[in-house]
Amino acid sequence: MGIQVYGFWRSIASFRVRVALRLKGLPFEEIPIDILSGEQFEPGYEAVNVERVVPTFIHDGHSVFQSLAILEYLDEIHPEPRLIPEDAKERAYARSLALMTIADSHPLVVPRVRNHLARAFGADAKAIEAWGEHWTTEGLATYERLLARRPAAPFALGAKPGLADICIAGQVVGAHFLKLGLAPFPAVAALADRCFALPAFATSHPFEQPGFKTASAHH
Amino acid sequence: MGIQVYGFWRSIASFRVRVALRLKGLPFEEIPIDILSGEQFEPGYEAVNVERVVPTFIHDGHSVFQSLAILEYLDEIHPEPRLIPEDAKERAYARSLALMTIADSHPLVVPRVRNHLARAFGADAKAIEAWGEHWTTEGLATYERLLARRPAAPFALGAKPGLADICIAGQVVGAHFLKLGLAPFPAVAALADRCFALPAFATSHPFEQPGFKTASAHH
Repeated sequence: MGIQVYGFWRSIASFRVRVALRLKGLPFEEIPIDILSGEQFEPGYEAVNVERVVPTFIHDGHSVFQSLAILEYLDEIHPEPRLIPEDAKERAYARSLALMTIADSHPLVVPRVRNHLARAFGADAKAIEAWGEHWTTEGLATYERLLARRPAAPFALGAKPGLADICIAGQVVGAHFLKLGLAPFPAVAALADRCFALPAFATSHPFEQPGFKTASAHH
Repeated sequence: MGIQVYGFWRSIASFRVRVALRLKGLPFEEIPIDILSGEQFEPGYEAVNVERVVPTFIHDGHSVFQSLAILEYLDEIHPEPRLIPEDAKERAYARSLALMTIADSHPLVVPRVRNHLARAFGADAKAIEAWGEHWTTEGLATYERLLARRPAAPFALGAKPGLADICIAGQVVGAHFLKLGLAPFPAVAALADRCFALPAFATSHPFEQPGFKTASAHH
């Protein structure tokens, strides 16, 4: 039985999983859950994912939740090519970089948070966009400072793209959504360019998903 | 050279690292960074942690950032007792549980977010508390649903406490800050009681730190 991923074209966490599967050459089927319209709250999806979020990774009847747990699992069951290096200190650095967006920046800009800002504070579309710009910029600035200390060579951990690059590229996807210029973050921009030159990254970008094309056609 | 942790009494991420070090029996020195007064933005701390967050783990001149990366690193360099099981599916489940608070619930209630709500939306103390209650409750409810599907026996992954329990206990610490009753979440409450019966958890609770006692004496 193949790999299935419940995901959404716009979800940056779903983007991370798509890139990882493609870097490893693992075919998968993506089942769309429209988290903008609230499809994740329907009982059918709660049976799949009790947290009601995407992505959910399913293989041989076994489910894994949370993009970082999915990437770690993939690296354990299909170690080549590695997303996380073998050396303990390098593994820690890769995970540190990953978590700066996964645990600090990206959680602040997801749809359920944007919706709650509107409900709780009456925030309008412009204020919600400014909120997203603030946290997306904070994340980019953190990565820029980190890459100044340890330049990408050419990827964050060395010769090959992996976990850290996937997560930094996801942060850049957030900038693409908001049409933020990357000029203040040249090291991040150069790393993202190297990533998106690779088919695994390019074909996984939200703007390349069928759901984006359908959504755009309706506007 | 021993282990040093830059942390803060109130930080739930610092709590996770304290528990992990104590479960493994590793002595450490905690260096306080007052993230309520903004000490993390001073140049001295930026040299330690470019993201300007706690915790920072330092051992033999090597730094690790982000609580989950620190716990994974500790499990790699000091495997016994394990915080993350050996089986790949069980490892994935432990990390999934951990990330529900680390990547989804906890990031929404940290000081920099509460401060930005005040700046961006003019949120007052009551509105910020309601925001914290909303996301803390969402996280507790997710854990309650998960523990209904796979009951703790007696800990989340089995006989011994580990990564998932540390993270669920941290979510409960968030409820303690807000004085939220745990009656709607009986499975989470019972798991937290089992955790806080252990010295590694009890002595790591924010309310047991010297900084809390000093802060309370000033009010």
